[in-house]
Parts: sequence; structure tokens; C-alpha cells
Amino acid sequence: MRYDIAIIGSGPAGLSAAVNAKIRNKSFIIFGNKTLSNKIEKAPSIDNYLGLYNISGGELKERFENHINAMDIEIDEHKITNVYAMGDYFALTSGSEMFEATTVIIAIGTDSAKSIEGEDTFLGRGVSYCATCDAPLYKGKNVCVLGYNEEAIHEANFLNEIASKTYFVPMRNTIKKDLSSIDEKIEILEKKPTSIEGEMLVNKLNFQDESLDIDGVFIIKDSMSPKNLVPGLELDGQHIKVDANMKTNIAGLFACGDCVGRPYSYLKSAGQGLTAALNAVDYLAKKDR
Amino acid sequence: MRYDIAIIGSGPAGLSAAVNAKIRNKSFIIFGNKTLSNKIEKAPSIDNYLGLYNISGGELKERFENHINAMDIEIDEHKITNVYAMGDYFALTSGSEMFEATTVIIAIGTDSAKSIEGEDTFLGRGVSYCATCDAPLYKGKNVCVLGYNEEAIHEANFLNEIASKTYFVPMRNTIKKDLSSIDEKIEILEKKPTSIEGEMLVNKLNFQDESLDIDGVFIIKDSMSPKNLVPGLELDGQHIKVDANMKTNIAGLFACGDCVGRPYSYLKSAGQGLTAALNAVDYLAKKDR
Ligand SMILES: Cc1cc2nc3c(=O)[nH]c(=O)nc-3n(C[C@H](O)[C@H](O)[C@H](O)COP(=O)(O)OP(=O)(O)OC[C@H]3O[C@@H](n4cnc5c(N)ncnc54)[C@H](O)[C@@H]3O)c2cc1C
Ligand SMILES: Cc1cc2nc3c(=O)[nH]c(=O)nc-3n(C[C@H](O)[C@H](O)[C@H](O)COP(=O)(O)OP(=O)(O)OC[C@H]3O[C@@H](n4cnc5c(N)ncnc54)[C@H](O)[C@@H]3O)c2cc1C
Repeated sequence: MRYDIAIIGSGPAGLSAAVNAKIRNKSFIIFGNKTLSNKIEKAPSIDNYLGLYNISGGELKERFENHINAMDIEIDEHKITNVYAMGDYFALTSGSEMFEATTVIIAIGTDSAKSIEGEDTFLGRGVSYCATCDAPLYKGKNVCVLGYNEEAIHEANFLNEIASKTYFVPMRNTIKKDLSSIDEKIEILEKKPTSIEGEMLVNKLNFQDESLDIDGVFIIKDSMSPKNLVPGLELDGQHIKVDANMKTNIAGLFACGDCVGRPYSYLKSAGQGLTAALNAVDYLAKKDR
Repeated sequence: MRYDIAIIGSGPAGLSAAVNAKIRNKSFIIFGNKTLSNKIEKAPSIDNYLGLYNISGGELKERFENHINAMDIEIDEHKITNVYAMGDYFALTSGSEMFEATTVIIAIGTDSAKSIEGEDTFLGRGVSYCATCDAPLYKGKNVCVLGYNEEAIHEANFLNEIASKTYFVPMRNTIKKDLSSIDEKIEILEKKPTSIEGEMLVNKLNFQDESLDIDGVFIIKDSMSPKNLVPGLELDGQHIKVDANMKTNIAGLFACGDCVGRPYSYLKSAGQGLTAALNAVDYLAKKDR
């Protein structure tokens, strides 16, 4: 099946795009998490979402959930690892799985984590952003998870069922504080990785004072660099370059929310998600003529 | 008093700008209507404001009101007729009254009504967009109100207390339907005006089959052309030209919502209002250094 629109991300930007794709009767799929977005759930108190004064992140999440449930919108939990422009359509991959869509809306948010030396070089050759996607390649091998969020713990536990040895590096203090659910056979390293090394494939993860023999490094953070997601995508600094209609440099590819720039906020992201969806609908209409 | 920020318009764009100006502790004034916006109140059912599924315009209005009331934001009902860039600040006029602000956010929405031949030429010389502002100039004279919304009826009644003769042309079917509250001394003309004529000042309002001797034409619609509001403002077609930060071609002047382009929608407008306010705050911070 080829979708009219594939939306990557289930934060306010992606959800708003989905709502408007639905209203406009397009076939679409939205990739993300059933819990929507860490950045929604975790907010202590929100004052700047017009119409919803002084609500918690949990309440905002519930309101978003009610909205999409009422419209029968379901989130697909595949993590998309690559988007390829095929001319007439886009191919989206999640590990060995593939999806097709005529237009794509990128709403992946942004992660403040800096990339590690070697991360970009070895991406797809030992560096991965998705254990669920790539774990089978590491059967009986040594892997290390660099964990920036809670999801990383589940990913490490899952990898540990397949790999022969799994290391886990908590990359943020919030993760260090609660490691109770991690599998006891996983070795936890509380130190800062400095670089990823290798030849054709990754073979070393270096720290200041030590070096591990490793076949795979899984970097689990909220979002990856857009340039690693879509080859050929034009950026403006760290952000995806878009015009006022949320069009990127690739025809049929739109982007919205934190990944296109500041201010980082729910309302701006949601508004841009709407704009992106309506412009994708326009694009589809023109293509059909 | 010179405000940090003056916001023109009380639709979702202006309200969201005000909420964020308040959160950032700036001194500001927001001009508009206590009823917020005709375009909020009148919507039958809204599905695309993420987080608020299937609500009526009346309910959305109430939610916006609750939000600004909780934050002690009050709307000033002056209609702004001109904005002048004075170099270091802006002067905003409403008839003979004047306001000063270091930055201005334009959130006036858009009105689909086409302008009438002569409207732009005679603006300020017999053509006015605000009876409350300009009525005193027409004491003992003949005036005609071209009414596009309900407000126009109140404006005509008010003018009729001052002018010697007041005509009223209902410009939309919705207005024709309910003229019960109009002063009975006002003469209602159910025909289409074709042009406004004059020499230095307006002296004629023409219809297909007749011509009225008139000193003033009051055109009462939801919003005026931005180019008539701000001399020197760069447009893109009918819309105000802005960049991704909602900056116009004039330093310190921002715009957001329907007046900067499609899609015309609440959520997009509100998101842009937030962006405009935060960029005005940035501008103020840089100016202070
Ligand atoms: C603690 C905290 C408090 C905040 N408070 C406020 C506030 O009060 N007001 C405010 O306006 N803003 C606030 N923010 C900012 C706000 O959270 C963000 O601006 C907003 O969530 C951005 O929305 P988004 O849709 O662009 O991206 P996100 O919300 O980051 O969502 C992106 C989604 O995409 C998914 N994703 C990423 N990559 C992929 C992939 N390859 N495949 C599938 N899915 C993918 C992610 O898992 C995530 O679900 C706060 C942020 C934090 C962290
Ligand atoms: C019947 C109807 C149904 C709609 N349904 C939907 C929907 O379901 N979903 C959706 O997303 N959108 C809908 N819309 C579109 C939506 O109403 C607009 O996109 C939105 O209101 C634009 O917001 P805004 O803040 O830019 O401007 P507006 O809401 O137009 O507000 C502009 C405000 O500025 C004030 N103003 C103008 N000039 C001046 C001045 N010189 N001085 C002082 N104040 C001034 C006006 O009086 C007004 O209060 C609908 C519109 C209509 C008419």
C-alpha cells in the first residue's frame, strides 16, 4: 500500500498534521510512540497553549490523546531509520521493513545531545538509532547502548536477549537515577564516551581512560539528526530548512515543529503541523491533475 | 507611557502574542474587541485545534477568554487607524489618540472584501475605517456607512448622532437580514456602491444608477488592508511579508495570523502569535544591550 502522507513523529507537530490529513480524507500513517512524546508528558506546567491555561504535561497529553482517539487516528510504533526520495514517492525504512508514501511530513522534534565523534561516519556500519530495527544483526556480538532517555533501557534489555554482551552508558543524570528496570546481566558504565572507532565497521568505543571492543553502538535519544534520516535534505544549522509553507528542498517532503527551528513550543509546533498537512494535500492535488 | 509591545488584533494570533508577552514580563497593550474576533464566535464546529476536539466557536471563545482572564490580560477597544515607524519606536493612532510602543505585532486578520474604487485614494480624506475615531470631523455633514459586519450598525447609529444625514449600505446578506437595531432616521440603501469620488476631499459616492453627495464614507469591515495601516510595509500579494520569525521589512514590527497568509486557521495563527511575541522579546533584549 502506498499512503498519501507518511508522518514521522507523534509530538504536537505530527499529531496536528495527522488531524488535518484525516479531516482532508487522505490515507496516511503516523509513526511515533503511543505515549506521544517525552516532551509532552514531562512538562510540569504549561501556560502558553492558548485555550488551555495552567495544565500539566500529563493533562495536555490526555487532551491530545482524546483528540486523536475521537478521530480514530492510531500511532504506528515503528522507528523510521531512513527516508529515501524515489522520484515519484518516498520509501521509508525501519530496519528491514519498508513503507511507501507519496508525501512525507517530518516532525521528529530535536534532541540537544551533541553527536559523538564517529557517530555520523559509522551510522549504518555499526552505529544504530534503533535496537528494535537492527538487533538481529548483532546476534552473539558485543554491543553498547548510549542511553539518553528511558526508552534506551527497554532497548538495552531487548538487545541483551540477542547480543552476547551488552554494555549500557547512561548519558543523562535522569537516566542514572533510575536504572532499576535494567537487566542485571547488562554492564553499566558511568563514564563519558569520547569517540567511536572502526575500519569498515565499528570495532571500538573509546572513553577517556579505556577502550571497549564493540561491534555495535546503539545511540537511543529522542530524535536523530535530520540529515542522517533523509539523505540530501537541506539544513539551516541544526534545523531543517523550510519555507512558510513548511516545504523542504525536496518536492513532496515537508517538515514542522522543533526540528525546523525555534521557538521550541507546543503551539508553534502544532500550528506548523497543520500548515504542513494542508500543503501536502495541495501537493497531492496538483500531482493528480 | 511607552509600551514594550503593542499588539493590534484580538483573534487567536493577537491573544497568543499577548499571553507570551505576559509570560515574558513585558509591558504591552492589546487592541481589539472584548468579544475577541467575529471569526472565533461564528464558527459552527471546530475539529482542528489540537487538544480541543469538536468544539463550537462559542466554546473556543470562552476558553480563550478564560485563558486571558486568568493571566489578567485586558483588551483595549481602540481601533488602530495608523502605525508610524518613528525610528526608535512606533506611534499608533486611533483617531486623535496616540499610543507609543517600542515594538508592534500586527494580528489584524484578513477581510475577503475587495476594496472599492477610490477607497485607497481617499483614505484619510473622507474615507475612514472607524466611526468612533473620526466621527467628530463630520459634525453636520452627510455620511454613508458601508457595513460588512454587525459592528457597522453601532457605528452608523453613533455617527447619526453627529452627522446631519446618515446613509447605510448593508454590504453582506447577513447584515441585510438583521437591521432591526439600526436607528430609524438612518436611510438604508440596498444597492452596490461602484466608486468613491472627490477632489481634495470625498464629495460623491456612486452607485450603478445614482450618485450621492457625501462628505464621508465609513467602511466598516473586520480588517483593513495592512498597507493602509502601516505606510512602507512590504506585502506579498494581499498578505504581509514575514520571515520564519514573523519579522516584517520594518525593524521592530512583526506580523502573524491570517494577515500573513494561508492556511487561514486558529492553530496556525496562535502558533505564529507565540513566535512573533518571543521574537519581539528578543528584539527588545538586543536593543537594550
Ligand atoms: C520539560 C519540558 C517542558 C516544556 N515546557 C513547555 C511549555 O511549557 N510550553 C511549550 O510551548 N513548550 C514546552 N516545551 C517544549 C515542547 O515540549 C516542544 O517544543 C514540543 O514538544 C515540540 O513538538 P514536536 O512535535 O516538534 O516534537 P516532539 O514533541 O519532540 O515529538 C517528536 C516525536 O517524534 C518521535 N520521533 C523522532 N524520531 C522518530 C523516528 N525516526 N521515527 C519515529 N518517531 C520518531 C519522537 O519519539 C517523538 O515522539 C517543554 C519541553 C520540555 C522537555
Ligand atoms: C465561519 C468561520 C468558520 C471557521 N472555522 C474554522 C475552523 O474550524 N478551524 C480553523 O482553524 N479556522 C477556522 N476559521 C478561520 C479562523 O477563524 C481564522 O483563521 C482565525 O480567526 C484567524 O485568526 P487571526 O488572529 O489571524 O485573525 P482574526 O481572528 O480575524 O482576528 C483579528 C482581530 O483583529 C481585530 N482588528 C483588525 N483590525 C484592527 C485594528 N485596526 N485595530 C484594532 N483591532 C483590529 C479584529 O477586530 C479581530 O478581532 C473559520 C472562519 C470563519 C469565518
